[in-house]
Amino acid sequence: MTSGSNSGDICNGIFRDGLLGKTPPYPTNIHDLEALAKEQLPPELYAYVADGAGNNTTLRDDRRAFGRWKIIPRMMRDITTRDHSIELFNDHLKAPILLAPIACQDAVHPEGEVAVARAAAAVGVPMVLSTVSGKSMEEVGDTPRWFQLYWPKDNAVTKSFLQRAEDAGYSALVVTIDTKSTGWRESDIAHAYLPHLRQKGIGNFLSDPVIRAALDEAPEDNFRAACAHIFAVHRDLTQEWDDLAFLRDNTNLPIVLKGILHPDDAREAVAQGMDGIIVSTHGGRQVDGSIAALDALPPIVEAVGDKMPVLFDSGIRHGADIMKAIALGARAVLLGRPYIWGLAVGGEDGVRQVLEFLLADYDINMAQSGLTTTAQLGPDILRRADE
Amino acid sequence: MTSGSNSGDICNGIFRDGLLGKTPPYPTNIHDLEALAKEQLPPELYAYVADGAGNNTTLRDDRRAFGRWKIIPRMMRDITTRDHSIELFNDHLKAPILLAPIACQDAVHPEGEVAVARAAAAVGVPMVLSTVSGKSMEEVGDTPRWFQLYWPKDNAVTKSFLQRAEDAGYSALVVTIDTKSTGWRESDIAHAYLPHLRQKGIGNFLSDPVIRAALDEAPEDNFRAACAHIFAVHRDLTQEWDDLAFLRDNTNLPIVLKGILHPDDAREAVAQGMDGIIVSTHGGRQVDGSIAALDALPPIVEAVGDKMPVLFDSGIRHGADIMKAIALGARAVLLGRPYIWGLAVGGEDGVRQVLEFLLADYDINMAQSGLTTTAQLGPDILRRADE
Amino acid sequence: MTSGSNSGDICNGIFRDGLLGKTPPYPTNIHDLEALAKEQLPPELYAYVADGAGNNTTLRDDRRAFGRWKIIPRMMRDITTRDHSIELFNDHLKAPILLAPIACQDAVHPEGEVAVARAAAAVGVPMVLSTVSGKSMEEVGDTPRWFQLYWPKDNAVTKSFLQRAEDAGYSALVVTIDTKSTGWRESDIAHAYLPHLRQKGIGNFLSDPVIRAALDEAPEDNFRAACAHIFAVHRDLTQEWDDLAFLRDNTNLPIVLKGILHPDDAREAVAQGMDGIIVSTHGGRQVDGSIAALDALPPIVEAVGDKMPVLFDSGIRHGADIMKAIALGARAVLLGRPYIWGLAVGGEDGVRQVLEFLLADYDINMAQSGLTTTAQLGPDILRRADE
Amino acid sequence: MTSGSNSGDICNGIFRDGLLGKTPPYPTNIHDLEALAKEQLPPELYAYVADGAGNNTTLRDDRRAFGRWKIIPRMMRDITTRDHSIELFNDHLKAPILLAPIACQDAVHPEGEVAVARAAAAVGVPMVLSTVSGKSMEEVGDTPRWFQLYWPKDNAVTKSFLQRAEDAGYSALVVTIDTKSTGWRESDIAHAYLPHLRQKGIGNFLSDPVIRAALDEAPEDNFRAACAHIFAVHRDLTQEWDDLAFLRDNTNLPIVLKGILHPDDAREAVAQGMDGIIVSTHGGRQVDGSIAALDALPPIVEAVGDKMPVLFDSGIRHGADIMKAIALGARAVLLGRPYIWGLAVGGEDGVRQVLEFLLADYDINMAQSGLTTTAQLGPDILRRADE
Repeated sequence: MTSGSNSGDICNGIFRDGLLGKTPPYPTNIHDLEALAKEQLPPELYAYVADGAGNNTTLRDDRRAFGRWKIIPRMMRDITTRDHSIELFNDHLKAPILLAPIACQDAVHPEGEVAVARAAAAVGVPMVLSTVSGKSMEEVGDTPRWFQLYWPKDNAVTKSFLQRAEDAGYSALVVTIDTKSTGWRESDIAHAYLPHLRQKGIGNFLSDPVIRAALDEAPEDNFRAACAHIFAVHRDLTQEWDDLAFLRDNTNLPIVLKGILHPDDAREAVAQGMDGIIVSTHGGRQVDGSIAALDALPPIVEAVGDKMPVLFDSGIRHGADIMKAIALGARAVLLGRPYIWGLAVGGEDGVRQVLEFLLADYDINMAQSGLTTTAQLGPDILRRADE
Repeated sequence: MTSGSNSGDICNGIFRDGLLGKTPPYPTNIHDLEALAKEQLPPELYAYVADGAGNNTTLRDDRRAFGRWKIIPRMMRDITTRDHSIELFNDHLKAPILLAPIACQDAVHPEGEVAVARAAAAVGVPMVLSTVSGKSMEEVGDTPRWFQLYWPKDNAVTKSFLQRAEDAGYSALVVTIDTKSTGWRESDIAHAYLPHLRQKGIGNFLSDPVIRAALDEAPEDNFRAACAHIFAVHRDLTQEWDDLAFLRDNTNLPIVLKGILHPDDAREAVAQGMDGIIVSTHGGRQVDGSIAALDALPPIVEAVGDKMPVLFDSGIRHGADIMKAIALGARAVLLGRPYIWGLAVGGEDGVRQVLEFLLADYDINMAQSGLTTTAQLGPDILRRADE
Repeated sequence: MTSGSNSGDICNGIFRDGLLGKTPPYPTNIHDLEALAKEQLPPELYAYVADGAGNNTTLRDDRRAFGRWKIIPRMMRDITTRDHSIELFNDHLKAPILLAPIACQDAVHPEGEVAVARAAAAVGVPMVLSTVSGKSMEEVGDTPRWFQLYWPKDNAVTKSFLQRAEDAGYSALVVTIDTKSTGWRESDIAHAYLPHLRQKGIGNFLSDPVIRAALDEAPEDNFRAACAHIFAVHRDLTQEWDDLAFLRDNTNLPIVLKGILHPDDAREAVAQGMDGIIVSTHGGRQVDGSIAALDALPPIVEAVGDKMPVLFDSGIRHGADIMKAIALGARAVLLGRPYIWGLAVGGEDGVRQVLEFLLADYDINMAQSGLTTTAQLGPDILRRADE
Repeated sequence: MTSGSNSGDICNGIFRDGLLGKTPPYPTNIHDLEALAKEQLPPELYAYVADGAGNNTTLRDDRRAFGRWKIIPRMMRDITTRDHSIELFNDHLKAPILLAPIACQDAVHPEGEVAVARAAAAVGVPMVLSTVSGKSMEEVGDTPRWFQLYWPKDNAVTKSFLQRAEDAGYSALVVTIDTKSTGWRESDIAHAYLPHLRQKGIGNFLSDPVIRAALDEAPEDNFRAACAHIFAVHRDLTQEWDDLAFLRDNTNLPIVLKGILHPDDAREAVAQGMDGIIVSTHGGRQVDGSIAALDALPPIVEAVGDKMPVLFDSGIRHGADIMKAIALGARAVLLGRPYIWGLAVGGEDGVRQVLEFLLADYDINMAQSGLTTTAQLGPDILRRADE
């Protein structure tokens, strides 16, 4: 990434051993890769990953929002040395990208989150491991990684998760606050609500000492009892801003709130002593008809100022998207569905291809725009589109 | 509706005995359900329900108008206890929804309006029975229901209808004022004008004592004479605002005018002592090229102020649509074509599924937005879209 | 048209002897009718009528422009008596509609312009006969009709045409000024430039005494010589505003200039003593990428004031379009391609169906909007759309 | 071009010997021609020419930008004598059009750039020969032509190229400054990065004395060594504005910078003593998501004033596009992909057809708009579209 990613470099770097063992034309475009993934996954599992809430309105709007901004590239600048890396909390990121937390990756590929973590480490960006992970947080290799928390009702379980994340070397805690319940996802209901996820995504639960202790007390330590307990401790509809003090008191990790769309909620996050926020529509999976994440970003950046980093999630597909989100004030972006398509098609190699391509796309688009560091991205490189 | 509609609840509540006796994927999405209904109905009947006036311009615009508003959800609020019910005239509604008056439901399903009324009662919302109902108003069970009047020319018939509605326990009168004649509906003309509706929708006419008395005077009490009489008494092109005094004088029910799109007409309704109005394009079936109902709503709400409730009809398909219409000032919304698709596919069960899904969608979208009562909906939760 | 066009009336009026001898579903919608015409015409002839200049940009824009205006209907008005007729120059029009001049109708149907004139007379609106007519102006029956002039180079021919039009009882002269040459019509070029029009559209030329005298002087009075002469006298690229004095001096008919899109050209028409203008893009067939006719209308109406009537052409397909054009200041509109599709499918009956349907659509849409006369149409019934 | 391009002229001029040896319908429309070219070219070569960078966003936006401007034509002007020619640097152009530099035309057709140059000369417009040309600059006939420079790292090679271009009679130098590296072109990567271009586009390199001398010093004068050397001297990521002095000092030709999108870069070009600039997105092939070239044009024209001519490239497909770009301030436009489709389908004849059609389209659209010279084009003929 630091120099000379001209076309030759790209070829050499990317086409080792053929691309995912295939012959040309390769699935280069993310839409082609998604089509391949769709062929390989059961339809209900594909729909679970691909679809959003309700009428998919927000899913589409998240993408369209990027089209309303255009980049004005600058010429005749020395672009030989490029360094897109950023420092974020305790990590050095080769590029301003993280892998968004996505549940149940063991349903997509047997190696699941372990494969994803390896690919992320290979390209030098952190993954955010979901609470609802197929592998336990201890099983996922010691690479730069953050832990995402679906905040359980049971404080003992919460404390256990926080302690385990610290012990296992996670560098930050992402608390998802937009998902007290699942969104109205019609394709999931159409498929009788997620039978393909049965026994998936429970790595962190089954391995948890607090949960296991509770199960030992149950008459039969079977799967049904485990699930009942998991659902009993999972998600608390009552949680309010003040309750965040409990998390603040029980972890030394930086806490990042994920799922904020209103500037006043961003201000509240600052007031509660949080360390960062992620502007996100949860990939269009929660409130059908909500504001597009990118449209929500500028007023939130203005509200927060330099009090904490604002990250961005929902809709990132191309290098230009990264440039736009950061130019509008995001410190870094999270990538979601695209790496799952890579995982489905090629496991670790597939995820790595998606990441390498996205980073090459970002590097080249930056260079062509006359920009050599992520810090140079600001509103002056953008123009609001007329369409 | 009042608590805990998390994903488990939804599954349990919704998937009894398989969904409409079918196997997955279920027709969850309203568009999938419409496709099923289209398969089952004669093409001319499907077209009669589905199409709008002229070029279907208004039909499409009614839907697009919702896309111009986006919801900004709020996080970290206690959403455990949710109560979306409202009081409207003499009824308690579990959610701010009524079933819009739709003619000739006996053409769609043998149980017609009786099945619809049962489904509406089961979920706790009123249906509005059409004048042109297959079943007579007395046959439709004693559930919360309003009576819709196509105001006849013959005052004796009108008085009879009003009296019967009161006697049968209807709680409000909806007077449709946008349909002095049928719209220019090209698909109906293409099908030689509604042969599939022959002998349909005449439940209230054939059972009416005034009409029956007139028929007894006719030489032959046959169907042809009945129809001639019905058309003779039906619809009066001369009616003007002052004429509403006749209705006001002849019923104790609250009177709600349906089909208003201009603020000055809304002011006139107030001046005539009406009890409410419904902003509506008649589902895009009357004036081809008219303003979208949702675009007409805000200026009308401003004109009316708190002098009477303003209801909304035309284009409601999803929970987010309900939120947007109410946030823009509507007290409640009417649902039209979607429940007819449910009726066509599954009779009473089909209508109930449509309603339960819509209410679950509304409940979840509200909860995800941090809202627990319908009264919390206001313009502050919306942002005008840039596209 | 003057009363009671309720649904019964429409059925009775329209469905005589089945619709164009077909069984349901009838080709009611103009797009369905066009599809039928496309099946029946040679592809190059269909393309000649259907396509516009260049990339069809203006053809599409002409239609889209109507979508930017929405009608706000009014309720509870007495709409029993409706009279949409207008007076225009020397004619009484049952509705504010004329048939636009279209060349070579003998290529579409053997009865060509004669059939069209009969249909126009039957519904009470004038047709505008093209210079390039298959039938001579004397052959077209003595019904309300205007004569369209492609102004020849040869003054003797021009004078002859003007005199013949007066003698044959034409009530106005339409001078097309936007067609000094044919537009860049790619589908015509693709088909080797109009072989299907060979020997078509020459009724007025072959019957003209001045042209015939010139041919008599030619060595061989054959078709080739006739054509050469016709092209020699046809169209003069030098004509400027002052030259209109020649027409003014040589006819007593009102002169209407067709093809104006700029307010300054409209002012020039007033200055030259013209009697009217027609805002038109020539159906999108001349300048590819020109302003849509409807977008050009309001500034021209403002420039002209009440100094002369402004007519409108290009894009009329539905009753609502007529309402919008007139509300924006047009005195009447011209209908083009739709009646040619009627002519192709059903000859005189086909044209009559198109006209009756359009008039019924207009009548019903007006009535539903609370309007009973064309004069009531003004900008107050419209709202600019937000999309 | 100078008179009378009425429909007869067009037919006579265009349809010699059938169109490209085909029977009607001829590939008149540029989209039809592209479809034909797609059939004839290997898929990866077609994609190389047709596609843009990344998601093709800019490729689409470049076209859409034209739709935001509409032409307001004027009537009744003498349009007999039309002369669209312009003077540009040392050339007389029959119309304000040049052929854009496009690499590797020998991959598309064996005669490659030689055929293109002949066709350009036949219609009287210059071609801009690419550095990466199949034929050497000396092989391309002595017709009006400019030389495009991908500025090599090696000053000796650069000087050699500049001297050769002057010696061979090229009239201007176009320096492409937006391509220090290739864009992120997904279809090229999908096809394993341009195998179809192997040994193509090296005419200027293999024939260069400086490069050949270096090769002679190499142990084996084989193709692999040549390529290595070419890539070694090619493109310098360090170049900045001041470096342009080197070019200025080493050529007497006018220097035109190609690829400017920001007004400040245009000002810098003036400051560096350049002779002209070309506003261009490189046909949407460099920065995915960049501003559309036409949207970038007006602020650049304002910034430059009359200090140098501003040319326009990217998206020209029709006569109306030329009118719009020039009305917005461009002195001339460059045509790209369309002539490659002509080359693929018909070699020199194919290119000539594309050019003759485009010029006829331009001539007719100008005439229909009442314009007879390119100099009459200005912002007053345009209106910003409402859509």
